[in-house]
Amino acid sequence: MSGKQDTAAGTGAAAAAPETAAGADTWLDAITWDERGLVPAIAQEAFTNRVLMVAWMNRAALLETVRTGQAVYWSRSRQRLWRKGEESGHRQRLREVRVDCDADVILLKVDQVGGIACHTGRHNCFFRRLEDGRWVDIDPVLKPASEIYAK
Amino acid sequence: MSGKQDTAAGTGAAAAAPETAAGADTWLDAITWDERGLVPAIAQEAFTNRVLMVAWMNRAALLETVRTGQAVYWSRSRQRLWRKGEESGHRQRLREVRVDCDADVILLKVDQVGGIACHTGRHNCFFRRLEDGRWVDIDPVLKPASEIYAK
Repeated sequence: MSGKQDTAAGTGAAAAAPETAAGADTWLDAITWDERGLVPAIAQEAFTNRVLMVAWMNRAALLETVRTGQAVYWSRSRQRLWRKGEESGHRQRLREVRVDCDADVILLKVDQVGGIACHTGRHNCFFRRLEDGRWVDIDPVLKPASEIYAK
Repeated sequence: MSGKQDTAAGTGAAAAAPETAAGADTWLDAITWDERGLVPAIAQEAFTNRVLMVAWMNRAALLETVRTGQAVYWSRSRQRLWRKGEESGHRQRLREVRVDCDADVILLKVDQVGGIACHTGRHNCFFRRLEDGRWVDIDPVLKPASEIYAK
């Protein structure tokens, strides 16, 4: 997380990363995983910069994302790896991975397959805007969820 | 958070919001606050769509943000409201507030005063990119932190 106010824990943990450790996954040790071993991950559309969604990642999810080039998250409700698009086909092809100053938030720049990131069938999950004290749906459903998830 | 996998809790909580309640702050009840009463908030630069930072908000922070038109977060380390820019002057003027499908992530579209959101003096906090298994600083320091926070 960001800002001077919240840097103490993040900086400490990052500095404590084993810089002398060998192996290809040392970069994972630089992440400030929370008490559950998770960090929030933002998926941002690479060519528009629009924010698509936020989900969680554990170490295995981030490693698989980088190795496969497809976004993989950790589903807290199912307690298992969630390969984005595994049911819908709406995968996210990885373009770039960034981490913030406190190393506790991941930013993925991706190409969104099908142009639909949200399970509601919309381009992205942030389709509700606050207007005069009410949340208003402002983005269209591009494909009904019943079609996306039909068996 | 996003995706079909993680909707159960979010949808349930949103549906349980007191739709019949009177008062101007009913929209706050639609948010799925976590067990600490917090949600992550992304600040996105309105005119470039670049992601500036992620911080946390509680109910009071989000309410003050909307009422004042300036981003206010909850500092977990200091356990108090953090009026972004209160020390640095790098305030964030609110353009738009969005919430995601599960109502557990807030997206603020803002104008970043001074063009610097990060306490390191960079435009944004996501200045490290993963390159060949290493985190590499790729964005310049626009103003040294010692100048930003000089008393």
